[in-house]
Amino acid sequence: MKILLIGATGTLGAALHRTLDTRGHEVLTVARGGGDLRFDITDPAQVSEVYDRAGRVDAVVSAAGHVPYGPVTELTPEDYLAAFHGKVLSQIDLVRQGIPRIAERGSFTLITGVLAREPIPTGSAASMANGALEAFVRAAAIEIAPQRVNAVSPTVFTESLGEYGDYFPGMPPVDLADVTQAYVRSVEGAQTGQIYAL
Amino acid sequence: MKILLIGATGTLGAALHRTLDTRGHEVLTVARGGGDLRFDITDPAQVSEVYDRAGRVDAVVSAAGHVPYGPVTELTPEDYLAAFHGKVLSQIDLVRQGIPRIAERGSFTLITGVLAREPIPTGSAASMANGALEAFVRAAAIEIAPQRVNAVSPTVFTESLGEYGDYFPGMPPVDLADVTQAYVRSVEGAQTGQIYAL
Ligand SMILES: NC(=O)c1ccc[n+]([C@@H]2O[C@H](COP(=O)([O-])OP(=O)(O)OC[C@H]3O[C@@H](n4cnc5c(N)ncnc54)[C@H](OP(=O)(O)O)[C@@H]3O)[C@@H](O)[C@H]2O)c1
Ligand SMILES: NC(=O)c1ccc[n+]([C@@H]2O[C@H](COP(=O)([O-])OP(=O)(O)OC[C@H]3O[C@@H](n4cnc5c(N)ncnc54)[C@H](OP(=O)(O)O)[C@@H]3O)[C@@H](O)[C@H]2O)c1
Repeated sequence: MKILLIGATGTLGAALHRTLDTRGHEVLTVARGGGDLRFDITDPAQVSEVYDRAGRVDAVVSAAGHVPYGPVTELTPEDYLAAFHGKVLSQIDLVRQGIPRIAERGSFTLITGVLAREPIPTGSAASMANGALEAFVRAAAIEIAPQRVNAVSPTVFTESLGEYGDYFPGMPPVDLADVTQAYVRSVEGAQTGQIYAL
Repeated sequence: MKILLIGATGTLGAALHRTLDTRGHEVLTVARGGGDLRFDITDPAQVSEVYDRAGRVDAVVSAAGHVPYGPVTELTPEDYLAAFHGKVLSQIDLVRQGIPRIAERGSFTLITGVLAREPIPTGSAASMANGALEAFVRAAAIEIAPQRVNAVSPTVFTESLGEYGDYFPGMPPVDLADVTQAYVRSVEGAQTGQIYAL
């Protein structure tokens, strides 16, 4: 398949790139600072340009997203808005603008995260963003068939434990190898409206 | 208890007002166009003014919120932003600004809805908003103790079937009498981080 990979230069994105390559897919990479197409998906005009340049693709997979962390007493309305733009609206826009442009039976696979269901201190904006996307995925799925949309919702990556491990005491991490298999399941399988919680 | 009721003039809010009155609480009502305090909670400055005028309260209960409906192919980024401001950020702001002002063991009860878990066509912005708030409630709860925060997440009200019933085929409605009891459970009980799904 021809696959558009957003956030291709990140921890998850790089692993996903390797996995999709190995499975014989043609991968077109996107990030702000690297990849085949250098664009910012928080800007709808740039999302449009990404699709223009990509041409018809069979799947859109996203491994991008940024949200601020901080105590609920310190996060401002601007912080929640930044989380909304940086992770929610940007990925919703990949779907919205992708529907008329990707293959007839194409798929979207978005990234959320465990904080949708398991809270940690300082994570209220992240939880909010992940919860928003997971509910969106269930809703969009019933409208866009035969196109499909799923979300991958992992706990902390084993490979990110050095950076984030202290925030997830006692929560088993997940290997990137398993996270990328959830994307394979979404892209090559036939399910829709699923949240792959790992 | 002294209770601040946001959205007091709506279908749910009016029922909630009666229930809380009957249970002997002192209720201070808020809405843009009616009630004791006429303010718009989508504006943080007005939320601050509501709290200034209300003085110390024991509970904040919200029955306000507006989101646009439309096919996922027609909803624009502005529509999702409107849903975010109109239902999510406004209620998050009630919590954020309320924490330092309400009683030490006070509570917040927010309104979400069944679309967080059960999608309907044209409901992707509503699903997104409800999913965002429910995840926020779980996250905020673990940070604000001994203050508490819960969400009431009802299906269509029996009393709203005339207006919205066609959107919920085969889904059992819930009587406002039961919805208002979920608020009572949140306000007078001791639970936190709960989503009362009815
Ligand atoms: N790390 C974990 O343990 C973990 C666990 C669960 C969920 N997640 C989620 O997984 C996702 C990826 O995490 P990660 O650790 O791999 O992050 P990361 O290393 O920071 O990678 C993010 C990638 O997305 C790109 N990107 C960010 N914003 C973008 C934008 N607006 N437009 C286009 N590209 C953009 C980045 O490149 P540029 O900066 O050059 O644009 C980079 O390629 C995040 O949503 C995160 O919440 C991570
Ligand atoms: N109706 C249903 O079947 C149903 C089912 C599940 C969930 N819900 C949810 O329950 C909530 C209430 O529904 P409803 O049917 O009772 O709605 P409604 O009749 O439209 O009442 C909304 C109330 O909130 C106030 N309000 C709206 N925006 C406000 C703002 N920015 N600032 C201050 N007050 C504001 C309104 O007064 P003003 O316009 O004067 O401000 C009114 O008092 C909504 O969030 C809805 O999604 C409803």
